[in-house]
Amino acid sequence: MDPHATPRRLAILAEGEFRPHSGKTARGVIRYGRDVIVAVIDSTRAPGNVSDDMGEAYDIPIVASLDEALRRRPDTLLIGIAPTGGRLPEAWRLAILHAIDQGLDVHSGLHTMLGDDPEFAAAARARGVVIVDFRRAPDRTETAVGRRHLPGKKVILTVGTDCAIGKMSVALELTRAAQAAGLAGVFVPTGQTGMMIAGWGVAVDRVISDFLNGTCEWLVEQGEALGDWVFVEGQGSLDHPAYSSVTLGLIHGTTPHAMVMVHRVGLEQHDFEHLPDASFPLQPLPEFIRLHEQVARLVAPSLVAAVALNTSTLGEAQARRVIAETADLTGLPTDDPYRFGGERLMDALRARLS
Amino acid sequence: MDPHATPRRLAILAEGEFRPHSGKTARGVIRYGRDVIVAVIDSTRAPGNVSDDMGEAYDIPIVASLDEALRRRPDTLLIGIAPTGGRLPEAWRLAILHAIDQGLDVHSGLHTMLGDDPEFAAAARARGVVIVDFRRAPDRTETAVGRRHLPGKKVILTVGTDCAIGKMSVALELTRAAQAAGLAGVFVPTGQTGMMIAGWGVAVDRVISDFLNGTCEWLVEQGEALGDWVFVEGQGSLDHPAYSSVTLGLIHGTTPHAMVMVHRVGLEQHDFEHLPDASFPLQPLPEFIRLHEQVARLVAPSLVAAVALNTSTLGEAQARRVIAETADLTGLPTDDPYRFGGERLMDALRARLS
Repeated sequence: MDPHATPRRLAILAEGEFRPHSGKTARGVIRYGRDVIVAVIDSTRAPGNVSDDMGEAYDIPIVASLDEALRRRPDTLLIGIAPTGGRLPEAWRLAILHAIDQGLDVHSGLHTMLGDDPEFAAAARARGVVIVDFRRAPDRTETAVGRRHLPGKKVILTVGTDCAIGKMSVALELTRAAQAAGLAGVFVPTGQTGMMIAGWGVAVDRVISDFLNGTCEWLVEQGEALGDWVFVEGQGSLDHPAYSSVTLGLIHGTTPHAMVMVHRVGLEQHDFEHLPDASFPLQPLPEFIRLHEQVARLVAPSLVAAVALNTSTLGEAQARRVIAETADLTGLPTDDPYRFGGERLMDALRARLS
Repeated sequence: MDPHATPRRLAILAEGEFRPHSGKTARGVIRYGRDVIVAVIDSTRAPGNVSDDMGEAYDIPIVASLDEALRRRPDTLLIGIAPTGGRLPEAWRLAILHAIDQGLDVHSGLHTMLGDDPEFAAAARARGVVIVDFRRAPDRTETAVGRRHLPGKKVILTVGTDCAIGKMSVALELTRAAQAAGLAGVFVPTGQTGMMIAGWGVAVDRVISDFLNGTCEWLVEQGEALGDWVFVEGQGSLDHPAYSSVTLGLIHGTTPHAMVMVHRVGLEQHDFEHLPDASFPLQPLPEFIRLHEQVARLVAPSLVAAVALNTSTLGEAQARRVIAETADLTGLPTDDPYRFGGERLMDALRARLS
């Protein structure tokens, strides 16, 4: 992949998923990506406009079908959701084949590698289009080597209390804030949506476990070559029954100078759809923060330097009150960078890491 | 694989590696496996006998070449070392092709999948022999579901202060001790050597990260179907720069009732060959034990119930003294089960978990 490629014209397939607090790939690419979004396909929301949810800046039609989207001349169909387990819903097969037939490239973040599907591969070859599977692991298979950061570089990893609460967005907002402050901020993508946004990276959850820490270490090396303030997208959470090992691979592989703890206000337990009777309650924030520092220190000293709250369920006054309360509770600079911008937390990071 | 398969006649290729504290696959299969070992191939040790290192019970010739080993009528060539990164040393290619040509199956724990090598695959097909890659990940790709243990089952995971210090052996010794006490003890292999010994399992370091916790959870489910006292082979260490994520996947995926902390006496830092200047010191044992309990508890309560020391560098009197000192230091039952048998620690586990 090429971080400097020309912008594309994307149609985003988000069928049945383009709702608030859902469709995080679609929303991430729309908000942070460099490509032109010609349409979002979700028949359950069509006709509509992305600006209804995401604000006036996003005047993008929501259409009911690929055929409607095609009228707006996309060059790429982006698979805009990532179901649990990452498999391709069978109903989408015809739509994807139709897109290929119409000359579109296909970009996918599913676990299922569309490029390995004989039918898709043959169709793409015949039509001369490209299928990009963002989740395909790199051929590189190296364990971590204990690399040290280059002098002058600052590496910040977003960690969190659960999946899908905004770790990628916080890293992106902090990158923006660093750049706005005249610093060489760089975002390091570790998941398929981040890769679609930045045009490079590795979906680390797809890497063979033996090479996970090593791949995270290597991603930071790439990031340091691109800038000075390196913001690594976190994954999962250290207490997640299914994904904690990916989180630890990031903590020990990236050896961040600082971590930013991301939390969604009101979240009290992991949403474990498989086992509705099981209870996996979240840890109290101060203890959870302290444990992150203890665990990180096993490989390299680090600290949680700020808290980023996701206050999307609250009105603004209430959000500001909860932010102040959380700052009191944790003793750490706290804000909602997605909502209010990353400047305050970026200032706190500069003060803490200088 | 089949845990109930007929014993094989193995020639173990351990070229240049069959030294004390090295060749752990060869030593593990010799000590714990159910197969007949006809010879160990290591020209740097030949002519010799395994009993020189491992004691009288192991009267197995060390020979200089595959041809010498073939005179003892093996049916299988087992690749008996696992180099860092897991790749096949080029010098072994000819020996493996020769073994195939002589009608031997090939069993390998390398990261490199020998069965996917066109030359090996064609040769095996032509000769009608089988190549088994123990590190091949299962097709199953499921994230953890938050499974609870069955009533009456006890799950014990070995954890440790470093790689390659005896976590597998401790799990095997405890399994033996449980069985000797009339309990239904079962060993759950999570690495290639354990799989070669027990005839089933998954090399979890080869599993895609997203499915690591889920695979560990599933292995315990298999173990519970085979017995009541389920001893899971640990991997890596929670503070290892390269492998910590695999360790956490085991802790959170198996949700053990108890952990046994394995430590090699005198070990003070991780042996990090890539970066001789880097220092990754081990944690003090009591703090490290406490941290394991804290981290485990993020998903399910657990405790470190015993310490298993590797005292192989000490004389017996000194070993017994260090064991007593470690018991004092940690407040936990301590022994060297590899050297003195697993009975004492097994008794302690029964007392603690009943």
